[in-house]
Amino acid sequence: MSLDAAVTKPHERLAEALSDDLAAVNALIRERMQSEHAPRIPEVTAHLVEAGGKRLRPMLTLAAARLCGYDGPYHVHLAATVEFIHTATLLHDDVVDESAQRRGRPTANLLWDNQSSVLVGDYLFAKSFLLMVDTGNLDVLRILSQASATIAEGEVLQLTASRSLATDEAVYMKVIRGKTAALFSAATEVGGVIAGQGPEVCRALFDYGDALGIAFQIVDDLLDYEGTEATGKNVGDDFRERKLTLPVIKAVARADAEERAFWQRTIEKGRQEEGDLETALGLLARHGALDETRAAAIEWAARAKAALAPLPDSALTEMLADLADYVVARIS
Amino acid sequence: MSLDAAVTKPHERLAEALSDDLAAVNALIRERMQSEHAPRIPEVTAHLVEAGGKRLRPMLTLAAARLCGYDGPYHVHLAATVEFIHTATLLHDDVVDESAQRRGRPTANLLWDNQSSVLVGDYLFAKSFLLMVDTGNLDVLRILSQASATIAEGEVLQLTASRSLATDEAVYMKVIRGKTAALFSAATEVGGVIAGQGPEVCRALFDYGDALGIAFQIVDDLLDYEGTEATGKNVGDDFRERKLTLPVIKAVARADAEERAFWQRTIEKGRQEEGDLETALGLLARHGALDETRAAAIEWAARAKAALAPLPDSALTEMLADLADYVVARIS
Repeated sequence: MSLDAAVTKPHERLAEALSDDLAAVNALIRERMQSEHAPRIPEVTAHLVEAGGKRLRPMLTLAAARLCGYDGPYHVHLAATVEFIHTATLLHDDVVDESAQRRGRPTANLLWDNQSSVLVGDYLFAKSFLLMVDTGNLDVLRILSQASATIAEGEVLQLTASRSLATDEAVYMKVIRGKTAALFSAATEVGGVIAGQGPEVCRALFDYGDALGIAFQIVDDLLDYEGTEATGKNVGDDFRERKLTLPVIKAVARADAEERAFWQRTIEKGRQEEGDLETALGLLARHGALDETRAAAIEWAARAKAALAPLPDSALTEMLADLADYVVARIS
Repeated sequence: MSLDAAVTKPHERLAEALSDDLAAVNALIRERMQSEHAPRIPEVTAHLVEAGGKRLRPMLTLAAARLCGYDGPYHVHLAATVEFIHTATLLHDDVVDESAQRRGRPTANLLWDNQSSVLVGDYLFAKSFLLMVDTGNLDVLRILSQASATIAEGEVLQLTASRSLATDEAVYMKVIRGKTAALFSAATEVGGVIAGQGPEVCRALFDYGDALGIAFQIVDDLLDYEGTEATGKNVGDDFRERKLTLPVIKAVARADAEERAFWQRTIEKGRQEEGDLETALGLLARHGALDETRAAAIEWAARAKAALAPLPDSALTEMLADLADYVVARIS
């Protein structure tokens, strides 16, 4: 990453390069989040979509379509689709996790109620499908519907697996490929598909999104154990919520009998006492679990960049490569 | 309705006439409710789809397609789509209503948890879209996606409107057209669309489903105030849950000041005391609200039958007419 690139963050450069498209996406989102009969729908939706999210996923779709030379109107519909699916997922996640905060603000389930979050999420899912139908392209309908199913599948798997010490790295990968990477890879792939690209380019875009999403989630899970105020993460949330993520999975794999008993008590049985988080952090350090997790994230970011090889050389392609670096820059 | 028809219920005669198609729908449902990674998904889904529901909505799709002469394979996909949307809606409804029983068994949110109900519902929504994509028909994709949006919209409207005495019959109609009739009308309409019928026949099928769904919901709301053990309804549930439905809306419209104060206290403020349900039933009787509600249901059933006029004469068309009679037979 050049010094210049470090000054402006890659997602900000993407937003600038795609500013007309992004404005069209935002206008389409505002139009399609309306409801003739139920004013609560746009209220709840606006709370989330106007909360200053980075529009990372829709930008991936726009960038993919543009770097493939697309000049039709439907990448805007697909980007709005991706943001609607993401927003619906956030609404339902906050109900599932009983979260109180999202993007530094109270969650919709707290401001309104769980009922509104569930039903407005359903509305946005349905509207996301209507947006796709507008494109008239059955391939993108299949890819994004499959991504929605894979997201839900990953979340259900997380629900049943995340408090069991039997959960290994293979299960963890299935969970994060579902809950996080599936929407990234679908977002990039449909950009190529709507631009009429062949299988090699579409596969490259899929692989980039998949690896980027995996790196993104591993970084998130690592920061949960070594974040600072600057990263906006609250150290130990996953531990307190008994959510088994990659750092702990690595430490459990190397645990002796006594350590295993500690993880059983704190994660599986949820009987946590004062000082347990410090003990957990000590075990992560002893087994090098944080360093290995960091290395895994960096490796996935490198795979994301490598996946870009078949794509046309362009400023947008470079920004996507920089974005992969940026995702892991917070932990390097 | 002939004596013979009364002996076998029309939905049972439909099931017999469509038995091969229904078997194919059930096989497709079982296939598509599987999940490679998350075994909880088919567990939760099976609890609902194998609980002895009547498959009323998918049968409407099968009957509509068949009476229009369709002989392709995709009415089976559409019927499974309709059942998946219905099942997903039930899972989310039970979370929203905090229900403990459905079809005489404990609800999924009680047997597993709210999280599983939300996420498995999301999975089924996504899989329902994948089923539709298989048909390759963009018109049915649009109709059923729009129906999903309308269902959610009706439910959100109910959430905000059902405890307010300002809710009048026009709002009530919007709510039940959304939460109930939208899936009935989409179920029948797509049967005609997949069969390649023109706008007159498709419109007739839509109108039939719309009127049938409205009659169905009005009957349900009436039985909440005059049901018996035979109808499986528990008298007064809607009153206790402060859900304003047609009988009470009619009584409120004719209330004097004292009666209005009663409805404000019991429905709007939710301060219910012993004897209030009996008082409410007395007010409904005094203003003829139950008889008028019954008349409204019968009128909508008649409209459903009238809507069938442009359709080909066939045994299936007759069964649809009988089904409209049957829906209101419980209250006549």
